Formats: sequence, C-alpha cells, structure tokens
Amino acid sequence: MRVSFEELKAEIKRVFVKNGMPEDKADICAQIHTESTYDGIYSHGVNRVTRFVDYLQKGWVDPNAEPVVEKDCGAIQVINGNLGPGITNALFAADHAMAMADKYGIGMAALKNTTHWMRGGTYGKYVAQKGYAAIMWTNTEACMPPWGAKETRLGNNPYVMACPGQTEDSICLMDMAMSQYAYGKLQVTRLAGKKLPFPGGFDKDGNVTDDPGAIEESMRIMPMGYWKGSAFAFMLDILGSILSDGVGAVDLNAATKGSCGGCSQIMIVIDPSRTMEADKMRETIRRAAEYIKSAEPDERGGSIHAPGEGSERFHAEHDKLGIFVDDNVWAEIKAL
Amino acid sequence: MRVSFEELKAEIKRVFVKNGMPEDKADICAQIHTESTYDGIYSHGVNRVTRFVDYLQKGWVDPNAEPVVEKDCGAIQVINGNLGPGITNALFAADHAMAMADKYGIGMAALKNTTHWMRGGTYGKYVAQKGYAAIMWTNTEACMPPWGAKETRLGNNPYVMACPGQTEDSICLMDMAMSQYAYGKLQVTRLAGKKLPFPGGFDKDGNVTDDPGAIEESMRIMPMGYWKGSAFAFMLDILGSILSDGVGAVDLNAATKGSCGGCSQIMIVIDPSRTMEADKMRETIRRAAEYIKSAEPDERGGSIHAPGEGSERFHAEHDKLGIFVDDNVWAEIKAL
Repeated sequence: MRVSFEELKAEIKRVFVKNGMPEDKADICAQIHTESTYDGIYSHGVNRVTRFVDYLQKGWVDPNAEPVVEKDCGAIQVINGNLGPGITNALFAADHAMAMADKYGIGMAALKNTTHWMRGGTYGKYVAQKGYAAIMWTNTEACMPPWGAKETRLGNNPYVMACPGQTEDSICLMDMAMSQYAYGKLQVTRLAGKKLPFPGGFDKDGNVTDDPGAIEESMRIMPMGYWKGSAFAFMLDILGSILSDGVGAVDLNAATKGSCGGCSQIMIVIDPSRTMEADKMRETIRRAAEYIKSAEPDERGGSIHAPGEGSERFHAEHDKLGIFVDDNVWAEIKAL
Repeated sequence: MRVSFEELKAEIKRVFVKNGMPEDKADICAQIHTESTYDGIYSHGVNRVTRFVDYLQKGWVDPNAEPVVEKDCGAIQVINGNLGPGITNALFAADHAMAMADKYGIGMAALKNTTHWMRGGTYGKYVAQKGYAAIMWTNTEACMPPWGAKETRLGNNPYVMACPGQTEDSICLMDMAMSQYAYGKLQVTRLAGKKLPFPGGFDKDGNVTDDPGAIEESMRIMPMGYWKGSAFAFMLDILGSILSDGVGAVDLNAATKGSCGGCSQIMIVIDPSRTMEADKMRETIRRAAEYIKSAEPDERGGSIHAPGEGSERFHAEHDKLGIFVDDNVWAEIKAL
C-alpha cells in the first residue's frame, strides 16, 4: 500500500509511545524510520519497527535511558548510551562530535553501551548536510565467518563516510556493511526464486555459491572483498571497542541483547571549511563525480553513480504515489 | 639471492644518494624500503627502488624539497609535501598528527602535493608502535573502472587502520587497496601460469574472469566487493582532496607525474589511552583475536589471522637465511 510521510511517521510514533518511549524521543525515532523508508531503505525503516518494539518489550532497549558523557578530553568524548534508543543516542553523539569539530577542527564522539542505530547513513547525512565531513562506524555481534573459517566470529560493522555535496542539498555518504550481502538481501533474492548477482558465501560443504538459500542455511556469508573485508571488519570491531571503552563482537554475542545490543559507535567529524574554501570544495566534488560518470558504461548497460545518489529514484516515486509499505508490515504495525 | 638487512639498506641508500637525495633522507627512505622487504612486501620494498630512482631522474620527485605546514587550526594541519620524497613527507605528517593527538586526544595531518608513500602500513605501524590508533589513506591516479563502467576513473586509494597490539611489540594494521588485486599480483600470477583464486576483473568483452592476463589487457580490474569498493574508493578520493586542500584522481591523471605524483594523504591519529586503560586495551585486543581464531577452519584448511600477522613467516625465513632479493632486481639496483 501507499501512505503519506506524515501518516507513516504518526503511526510509527504511536507504536513507540504505546511501548513506553517518551513523546519527544518517539517523535525523533519515528522521523528517522520514516526518512529511511522514504529513501528506499526499508530494512532499517518501516520494516524494522516490529523488531524494535520487540526489543523494547524484552527490555533490551531502555526507552527512558539518557546518554551520559563519561570522559571529556579535548577533542574526544566517550559517551555511555545506557542501552537507550540507538537513534537518539547516535544523534546525541553526532551533535557532540560537531561541537568538538567547531572548536578543534576535528572531534570524535565514541558511544558505548548503545543499541542499533538503524541506518548508519542517517548520521553521515545529518552532519554532511550541516557542512561537516565524517567517518563513522558501529560494531555488531558476530554474523560472518572470518576469512578461512566456517563459524561466525565477525560483525558486519557498517561503515560510513560522508561530506557535503555538489549543491546545497546533496551529500555523499555510504553505509557499507562488511558482508558482501545482508541477510535481508539473501532472503529477498531467495523468495524471488533468483540467484545472487555475484557469489555471496559458501554452502555447508564449503563451495562458493550464489544460491541465497544455501548461504542462509550454512550462515557462511562472505566478507566483501574476501580476506579484505574480513580484516577490515576485525579492525572496526577492535577500534570500536578501544576508542569507546566498550566491547566488541565476543562480548556482544555473550550479552544476547539482540542485534547490536550494547554495541559501540565511533563518529569522527571534521569541519572541512578549515582545510578547503567552500566553493572550491563543491567544485572539487562536482569534478570528481563528473569524472567517474564520463567513463563508458559497461556491456550490462551499467549506470555510474556517486555514493548516495541511489535514493533519488525512490524520492521521485514516493513523492508521486506516496511511500510504499508492504501490506503485511503495515498490518503488523497497526496491530502493535 | 639472499642479503643481510644492513647490506640491502646500504645498497639502496647508495643509489638514492647517487641520485641527488641528501644523506639523512636517503638513510630514512632506504630503511623503510628495507623494512618493507624484510616484511615480505617486495612490491613496495626493494622491487620499487628502480622506479623511484626513475622518478627522481625525471624530476617527478624532488629529493631536496621539504614539507611545509600551510594551515594550522587546532587539531588539524594541512601540510604541503612540495613533491618531496613520499616516505619522509609521510613520516613528517605522522609525527605532526601524533603531536596533535598528544594535545587534543585526536589530530589530523592532511598532506597534499606529495608523492608515493610506498607501503601505507609503514605509517600505521609507526604510530601504533608508539601507542596510537590511526586511520590513514592516500588517493592515487585512476587505475580502476567505477562499478558499471569500462574505463578507469578511480584510484585504488590504499586505506590503513592501526592500533597497538596484544603485546608491547605487536600491532594491528592494514594496507588495503580498493582493487581486489594489485596489478603486481596479476603479473606474478600470469607469469606462474596460474589463475586468480577468485575473479579479479572483466575481460575486454565484459565477462567476469579469473585470468590475470585478460584483466591486464582490458585494464578492467574489479573493485573489492564490487559496487562497495567502487563507492569507498570514490569517498577516499574526494575526502582526500577536500581535507588536504589538494587534488584527486582527475587532476592526478592530468598531471602525469607517475604513480601518486601530487597525491594527498590523510592521517587521523588518536591517543587511545584517553579512552581505555592500557591493560584493558591489550586484553580487549587479545580476546578479539582469540575469538576469531577459535572458529573452525574451513575445508581448504584456512588459517585465521589477525591483520598484520602475515609478515611473521617472512621474518622467520629472512632471519634464518637472509632477506630474499630477486636476482634481476638486485642486478638492476647494483647497476643504477
């Protein structure tokens, strides 16, 4: 079905308030879930609401907890998220990181003991639209085998880079999980009776496969770039723990507070106006984007995008027809 | 053939001094090239000496140029490398980034108009051994097609993350190019008459291939993780330019000063003792490494490593037998 932005947000907010979240926090969280849906990122938007409510009901997310700055040393702050809502905790950290960047040029907000931030790109976009550049990531519980192993021991640790865009509005961002495909993508592909476009893991006998069902069964999802994504995921895990005085995959798995319950998020935010004049910056980004797009498309008729441009087609569709929501998902939320 | 560390370093230093490099700089550069060789990274060690000398002779690297801090704003410095030797410029930037981290907890040294830093991991290791954590990268000229394109428009932009290790000595680091394989790996594999372990690019007709010669011919090397490495490489290119007031692939290609001539390098260095107590940090890293190694190895008898552990086998061999140097490479250097 199709709903308006306001209708979707109001329904999500209603459900969050009903499950114990204060009005102001529920408003912010509902706004972010709705924005992700509008951008076409259903997995961390409307399709995630039911699971988040389940976490509230289990006590894995404390809707009333507030983040607290535990260490404040110059351009670094360690913030304890106290297992509060991941979205409001992450926005708090992003605001603090920007304030440090205003003062020192660069600042790092290191959030520990927090919960799932939903779409990582939300926070990259948030600071980039205010004129900042950012490197951010979260660590997660283990969901992927290290390279050379059968058993899951690494998180997919989504990683974000962002900066202001070519125009006032546009921005560049990423929300890059360390696994080649998300489990959600495996499921969607399997249900459609299709194969993955490229091999995405190993079957239970250790054969490389593009069959999504075989990977769901083995849980042997492949790191992006094979050994490269494996090493990168490990570094994001340990730097996530160390820089926030928090924990990594080994303890997140033991805690069993759901996906990302107790995780750490690092936000390094930089004021690029200290290094490059604004017009020159936009021109540099414009020329870089123009340059990649000047390449001849491949035989598959590939279209060449700058990061973050993918949501434009969803905006056009959603503006015209309303935001698409799966009927079953909508019925589930209505019933909560 | 086999040579001692001192013999190799002395020969490389002789060649650098003969080609106009001051004694002190030549000593440092020779040391770094020799260390990379000792670690088994030949491509950026002894095997790179001839090309570096060629760049000196062409004037693409100015052996007498000194780096200059152009902007100094709190925890950020923009440094002009003045096309001096990439190694000494990068060490200068790393020293400045550590000094900023001492003062503010985090610091960013952004080096522009510099030259090839050889192995990026050198600088990660350099700061990690002194107790710092780091995120670093370089941008490069275009050598890889963006996802969906035939023509090279993206650099491979090697990316480094580092932190102190489990013991006093050991460290964690990466030197991750955005292409799945380096051109050097394609050449070595082709000369050995072998196929790549996983597909590494497209042939001239656009078919995915594991034939190294077909990729060398088409120049359609694949980004790691397909669309993911393509987007990541783009972000590293533009953030590299913006944060250093420097240039990216489009201008590096136009400058034609060889590989990385005029490139930018970003070094974000953090003092983790501000965020986590030293013993707890080492224990956190030890447990994370132990956790990944506790996974059952795969059917190929995969061995599971923490990043940076790969050089241990080279150290054992080189300590016992001397450092291996290809006979032809040694003859070339001797003749310079």
